[in-house]
Amino acid sequence: MKEKIEELWSEVREVSLGSNGIIERLESPPTPLQFLRNFINPNKPCIISNSISHWPSLSSWTNHSYLTQTLSSTTVSLHLTPTGAADSLAPLPTSPSSLCFASAHVQRLPFPDALRLINSSNPSERVAYAQQQNDCFRSEYCSLANDCDSHIGWATEAFGSEPEAVNLWIGNRYSQTSFHKDHYENLYAVVTGEKHFLLFPPTDVHRFYIRHYPAATYTYSQESGEFGLELEKPTRYVPWCSVDPFPSAENLEDEISKFPLYFNGPPPFECTVKAGEILYLPSMWFHHVRQSGDDGELTIAVNYWYDMQFDIKYAYFNFLQSIDYRSCLSPMMLENLCEEIDSGPDDNDTR
Amino acid sequence: MKEKIEELWSEVREVSLGSNGIIERLESPPTPLQFLRNFINPNKPCIISNSISHWPSLSSWTNHSYLTQTLSSTTVSLHLTPTGAADSLAPLPTSPSSLCFASAHVQRLPFPDALRLINSSNPSERVAYAQQQNDCFRSEYCSLANDCDSHIGWATEAFGSEPEAVNLWIGNRYSQTSFHKDHYENLYAVVTGEKHFLLFPPTDVHRFYIRHYPAATYTYSQESGEFGLELEKPTRYVPWCSVDPFPSAENLEDEISKFPLYFNGPPPFECTVKAGEILYLPSMWFHHVRQSGDDGELTIAVNYWYDMQFDIKYAYFNFLQSIDYRSCLSPMMLENLCEEIDSGPDDNDTR
Repeated sequence: MKEKIEELWSEVREVSLGSNGIIERLESPPTPLQFLRNFINPNKPCIISNSISHWPSLSSWTNHSYLTQTLSSTTVSLHLTPTGAADSLAPLPTSPSSLCFASAHVQRLPFPDALRLINSSNPSERVAYAQQQNDCFRSEYCSLANDCDSHIGWATEAFGSEPEAVNLWIGNRYSQTSFHKDHYENLYAVVTGEKHFLLFPPTDVHRFYIRHYPAATYTYSQESGEFGLELEKPTRYVPWCSVDPFPSAENLEDEISKFPLYFNGPPPFECTVKAGEILYLPSMWFHHVRQSGDDGELTIAVNYWYDMQFDIKYAYFNFLQSIDYRSCLSPMMLENLCEEIDSGPDDNDTR
Repeated sequence: MKEKIEELWSEVREVSLGSNGIIERLESPPTPLQFLRNFINPNKPCIISNSISHWPSLSSWTNHSYLTQTLSSTTVSLHLTPTGAADSLAPLPTSPSSLCFASAHVQRLPFPDALRLINSSNPSERVAYAQQQNDCFRSEYCSLANDCDSHIGWATEAFGSEPEAVNLWIGNRYSQTSFHKDHYENLYAVVTGEKHFLLFPPTDVHRFYIRHYPAATYTYSQESGEFGLELEKPTRYVPWCSVDPFPSAENLEDEISKFPLYFNGPPPFECTVKAGEILYLPSMWFHHVRQSGDDGELTIAVNYWYDMQFDIKYAYFNFLQSIDYRSCLSPMMLENLCEEIDSGPDDNDTR
């Protein structure tokens, strides 16, 4: 079964994505038909240039005082973490050999203060990231509504409906989003700075070692400037990708041995989306997101989540995900596993 | 694994097809966008009314003398079989307990003679079916070109290219097509009579027991009026569905026990396409086709084969098909197998 799944990884790359690891770039927006036929249907990402050139935000948002003036009386939700990795795995303080799924401390504060905190983010102290994903661009940030289109016309026509949510993201080079997938079709428009994506098709699902981690939330004391991390009570388990694609040099060997399917498999589709460009990130694609930039440089993006179709592709994905490829093992691997079973299983990897 | 595959059958029905077994009917042609979004993408069949009402063929082809006059000097390819089941499994004459994949005897003859043979088809003697699938409508039958559109406009726009092949089918109630799938998107327009389809999504692939059968071709002696069946030399194997959905009463029990996944699984999407209607038969769907009608009544249809996209759906299909669902075991079976391995493996089910 392992071989069959690996063949699927490679066939998806061959038949629809190309094996050169390059995301197709369109120099102008596709027609709705082209977008539907060549990208949505085959579940294939692309980068689109010259589709949002008319957005006032492209020039005005580089000016931070424009933003603080326009949002001077607006309260926003800011996500605070010690390292910049929100919604990602973190060691449990009480038992650092175990991991939990750690959500950011969310603080409501006036936008000018929020922007100051994002700008001064630093993993030695505290990283702030405006990344509230609850349609915030149309609610918290509605004063900026005229700076961007309320939807992406050609995409809306292709999907047949307006976006379900529009979110604003303001971060600096320390803000990261760990590997995950969304049940949405995503059009990710970068307004200032640039975003670096690692992308993997849904068929690579086994390579992320999705496991169930107990949910926890950071707490932050403004007085001491210190973070805590508290497990939710009652315990709630979140399925999340176990793989960090950028382990530290000292952890590298260990991570490779823990996640060989990731590190020894086909490389990511890697891309950088620059100001003025849109990434079409198809539903169910695994993605990891970073920003770059010097001190004081922000990456600001607006993303449009459109409802995905729950269709035969989705059913195929669920089927694939339900397969524990270890349940169909080569005789050699099976013997090793039998030894493990004989001496008592010590983890729940088979779930 | 068996359970997981069965869950896939049911999930495909749930998420995109509906579990009531009814093929959606459109009262007017969809826009290209609607067709792409709601049917091509999700790989979902539908029946479209009122899309070909302007075709002259709808009235002229009911008149057989119109056809014989228009094609009076045209030579066509007629498919002759003893039973009406062309391109289907048949017992080997030399060893009737074995099956082969039997193609029709193809006879080239003037259209008026061909039509006479189709009309007088009868399984006690000989069944003739004009079903040459080599773009024959645009070659052999080009004198009829003005009676139908050369392509289906809204479909061509959705697929982004003209049809790869257009075929004409003229048969009577004895002409059948056994279960198979095509690597094409199919728009099947019925001009006279009606066609009865049994349809199954690609995810049901295991239910058809596709096996490799030696290719054979019928021979027909006009003098004796008798058929022979000759294996191709050198032997060529054709992968074909083993299931006959309409076994005779005396074979029923036997067929059910040989093909339980078919007979005990979800029922077919059954539909009748009437004169003036189009069936959209998505790529890779399994289908079985019959005609009805009294003596002298013909079913005439024109089908348009458009290139399919070889994309992530296709890769998923190949992966699914590659799985021998008997190869993956439940944890309980795995433990049993471990015991077996400890005492020495004796089969290769794990591969």
